[in-house]
Formats: sequence, structure tokens, C-alpha cells
Amino acid sequence: MPSPREASQSLQEKLNETLEAVNKTITRLLPETDLPEARLFDAMRYGTLNGGKRMRPFMVMQSAKIFNVDMKRARRAAAAVELVHCYSLIHDDLPAMDNADMRRGKPSTHKKFDDATAILAGDALLALAFEILSDPETHEDPRVRCELVKELALAAGGQGLCGGQMLDLLGEKEEFDLGTISRLQRMKTGRLMTFACEAGAILGKAGEPQRKALCNFAQDLGHAFQVTDDILDVEGEVIHLGKPTKKDDKAGKSTFVSAMGKEQAKARAEMLVQQAIRHLHIFQGDRAETLKELAMYVLKRRA
Amino acid sequence: MPSPREASQSLQEKLNETLEAVNKTITRLLPETDLPEARLFDAMRYGTLNGGKRMRPFMVMQSAKIFNVDMKRARRAAAAVELVHCYSLIHDDLPAMDNADMRRGKPSTHKKFDDATAILAGDALLALAFEILSDPETHEDPRVRCELVKELALAAGGQGLCGGQMLDLLGEKEEFDLGTISRLQRMKTGRLMTFACEAGAILGKAGEPQRKALCNFAQDLGHAFQVTDDILDVEGEVIHLGKPTKKDDKAGKSTFVSAMGKEQAKARAEMLVQQAIRHLHIFQGDRAETLKELAMYVLKRRA
Repeated sequence: MPSPREASQSLQEKLNETLEAVNKTITRLLPETDLPEARLFDAMRYGTLNGGKRMRPFMVMQSAKIFNVDMKRARRAAAAVELVHCYSLIHDDLPAMDNADMRRGKPSTHKKFDDATAILAGDALLALAFEILSDPETHEDPRVRCELVKELALAAGGQGLCGGQMLDLLGEKEEFDLGTISRLQRMKTGRLMTFACEAGAILGKAGEPQRKALCNFAQDLGHAFQVTDDILDVEGEVIHLGKPTKKDDKAGKSTFVSAMGKEQAKARAEMLVQQAIRHLHIFQGDRAETLKELAMYVLKRRA
Repeated sequence: MPSPREASQSLQEKLNETLEAVNKTITRLLPETDLPEARLFDAMRYGTLNGGKRMRPFMVMQSAKIFNVDMKRARRAAAAVELVHCYSLIHDDLPAMDNADMRRGKPSTHKKFDDATAILAGDALLALAFEILSDPETHEDPRVRCELVKELALAAGGQGLCGGQMLDLLGEKEEFDLGTISRLQRMKTGRLMTFACEAGAILGKAGEPQRKALCNFAQDLGHAFQVTDDILDVEGEVIHLGKPTKKDDKAGKSTFVSAMGKEQAKARAEMLVQQAIRHLHIFQGDRAETLKELAMYVLKRRA
């Protein structure tokens, strides 16, 4: 439940607070070392502590707050989700994949280090996420920890992130219909966001309707997020995004904008955000207020 | 405990039996699909079902037998270990890493598919391993499942496989002393083998001395395995290994052979295998007989 202080904070202030807290947790989980393999850990830190809005950790923290989950535990789950997100960005940026030189306004990990180190850093971050979730510090109940591991594994694997990225690459060669584009986004973006929102419910041992409501919220919001991402790619400015724009068009990728046009895409994003917010009506009072604010933010964001 | 039938089987027969059982389990875990992202699953199957001795699954199965673990459960843990081993081979073979065109006598995964698909297939296999271990089908006790996840994550991550591979790559540029080479092998080979042997003890809720004995056995055997690998690289024949030989020398890598010479390396392997076997004396009768046979096999193998 939001404290009086939180109620007076702007969304940006809350986002910044989570950003700092999660960065601290990640820094603690990835301490500097002078071991001979230090280069690997340097790349892991570089690829995770190089900015980013920490939207997924924010979802974990906010969904956890609904169920009064201990914040130290929630931060560990939030860090695990962010490590998986960052690992996927590191691998997606590789020359063999999206070949992106820049990420969050800085050289991408393989540019700063090299391809081999970037591949290994991604791999090690993925493994670390599961190490964190399976540790008793994340939750005393091993059943809860197993559930977190299982759901994150599903979100990260062939049915989630990896499958979505595979589709994304195939989409450069063939034109997808709207159904396949939606499927792609559900796997590539939606699944991990869904886990982020579900994680709070799992940690809080929430009932099925509450858990389902958060999943539905996340699915719609993830969908809206991808639509706005595609819109930003055609009309956003490099200075806000920290990465080149119009890259989907250049790569010949099928996007929501290419499939339905910009105006219809904007209408769809708005509809999805409204729908996402409605799922949260199950939570009484202002318990889910910040998640609702987040949904509006996704619609209005410029980066 | 070995059944009368097992007692009369040769090690090769037992290895073949595990190979077939684990391949069946992996095939069931990675069914063919006609989904648009099928290419990813094709690559995952190709990278895991393309031969291989299944030594690590054999270690899981044999250590599990000591504690009368249900074989269906043990096979799931064995499959998870093998998926991690195969993922690491897929990534290690990439042009950015060891740049190996052949693996087990066939084109390596990125040669058969492409680099991007190979990267994603490896990632998805790593995630799948954790999905398997966290599933109640692997063990009814969530504490056991969490322990399996945690130990596999440690074996796969920066302190294990990934850290070892990082060192291996750094070893192409600088000469390592024997201590660093040993450390490298412990991380790159030893750690996952140790988990393979420990997994049986975790599944069987074995006591600390039994678990420790299996870990020590695996550490020494893993070390011996890497030494014999280095020896095979300089004197083995392509036809047995299914991959080019003398590649370490060409890449200027520091190996046990380069650091201590072939004869001393052979003596070291023998000493390590004897030491490994001695750790198993804690198990009465012929309970650990097959693991002892496996240790002798590592010493004599030609591939």
C-alpha cells in the first residue's frame, strides 16, 4: 500500500527511486574483482549499469507493494528480471543479431569490449538471474522460489524472449501479418513484463484472481509498449532514445506501424493502455495507483 | 545399487543405455513444432541431439543410483546438465569464440543454421535447463529443486563455465601459469562435472560426507578429463575426435601440455584419476563401482 510520502511523489520520482535501489542491488550482486577473469564481470556490469529506465524492476516493486512484500526481497526479484532484460539487449545488439553499435546513448557491450566477451557476459547474466531467485534470501519458502525460477525461465526461453527474437530476425526476410507481429511482441516484450508484474504476486502469495489481474495488465501494457516503441522508431528523436531511429524500416522489419499505419497504431496503443488499467480495478483504493500511472506514462513517453 | 544385469554390463553398454535414455528425455523436452519460430527449436535439437558421449548425464544417473533416486527424476536432472553442456558448446563454437566449424563430426550449430540462431538456441537451452529443474516433476521437494537450480546456476555462470571460457579466450593472448590453467579448467570443465555428480546426491538428499565425496571425485576427474583433452588435442586423430586437432596450439592457448609437457601431463592425469577413485571408498560394496570404471575410462579414452 502506498505510504503518504509515496502518494505525494511524482511517477518520475518513484521511477528514479527504484532505479537507484535496483542499481545498488545489481552493484552488490556484481562486485568488482581483480580475478583473472575480471573482464567478464566488467562487461556484465557495463551491460547492466549503463542506464535504462528500469521499467521491469519498477513493475516488480510496484506489484510487490500491493501485497506488502518485504522490499529487500522484491529488490532481488527486480534485479533478476533486469539482468535477464539486459542480457537479452546485449545479445540482441551483437553484429550477428541486430548489429547495434549504440545502446542507451553509449557503445553497446560488444563495441566496448568484444563480441566474445559480450556473448559470455549475456550468458553469465542469465545464469545469475536464476542463482538470485533460487537463493533463500529472495524468499524463505522454496515453493515461491521455484515458482519464480520456473516463470522466469519460461519468459526467457524459446516460448518467450528467445522465441520472440527468433521471430524478429525471421521478420526481416518475410512479411508478417498482424497476428504474427502480435505473437512476436508477446514473446519478445510481453512475456518478461508479465513476469515482472506476476513476480510481486508470487512473492506475496497472492490469490489467483489478483495474480491473473496483474498478468492481464502486464500483457496489455507490454503490447502497448511495443506499439509505442514502433511509433517512436519512426517518429522519435535520436537524442531521446539514445539509439538510432528508423532502424526497423531499414532492416525491412514488420512492425505494428508497417502493418497498420501510424495513426491506427496510436489508437491501438491508447485502447490497450485503457484496457490494461481496467484489469487493476480488482485492487481496492489506491493500491495499484502507481501501476496505473505507469500505464499512462507508456502511452506518453518519448523515449 | 547396481542390479545383477548392470553388474554384467560393460561400461560402454551402460554409457549407451544412458545416452539413449537421455536422448529420449531431451527429445520429449524439445518436441518438433510447426510454429513460426520452429527454426529456433530445430537448432536447439540439432545442437543437443548431434552425438556426444553424454558423460555428464551418466554422472548424474550413476550418482543418483547410489542413493536409489527414482530414475525418471534423475533423467530430468541429467537432461538439464546436458542442455547446459550443449549450450556452452554451441556458443563456444561461434566465430567470435573458438570459431569451430565442426562438432562431433558434423557442422557446428552456427554452420548448419547461422550465428544468430546459434546464439539464441544456446540462450534458450540455458533457460530450459532451469525450467526443467524447477518443475515438480524433477523432485517433489521444492527445497531440492531450489538447490539444483542454485548449484547449476553457479556452475554455468561467471564462477563456472562462463568465467572459464573467458579465461580460455584470454589465454590466447597471454601465457598462463599452471595455477591459472588449473583454475581455468576447474571453472570450464570441473564445475559442471561436479554439479553432475552432486546432483545425484542432492536428489537423494544424501548426507554431507557422501555429497562431499562425490564433489571431490568429480573435481579430480574433471581435472583429469581436461588434461587428457589437452593430450588428445596434440596426439589424437581427427577421425576419433570428430573435430580438428592441434587447435589449441594453433590458437596459442596455454594448456596443461604446453605448460608441463606431454609426459608429465600423462602422469598427472593418472595421479588425478587414482585420487578421484579414492574419494569413492566411502561408498560400501559396489555402489560406486561404475563411477570408478568411468574414471578409468577417462584415462584411456581416445576421443
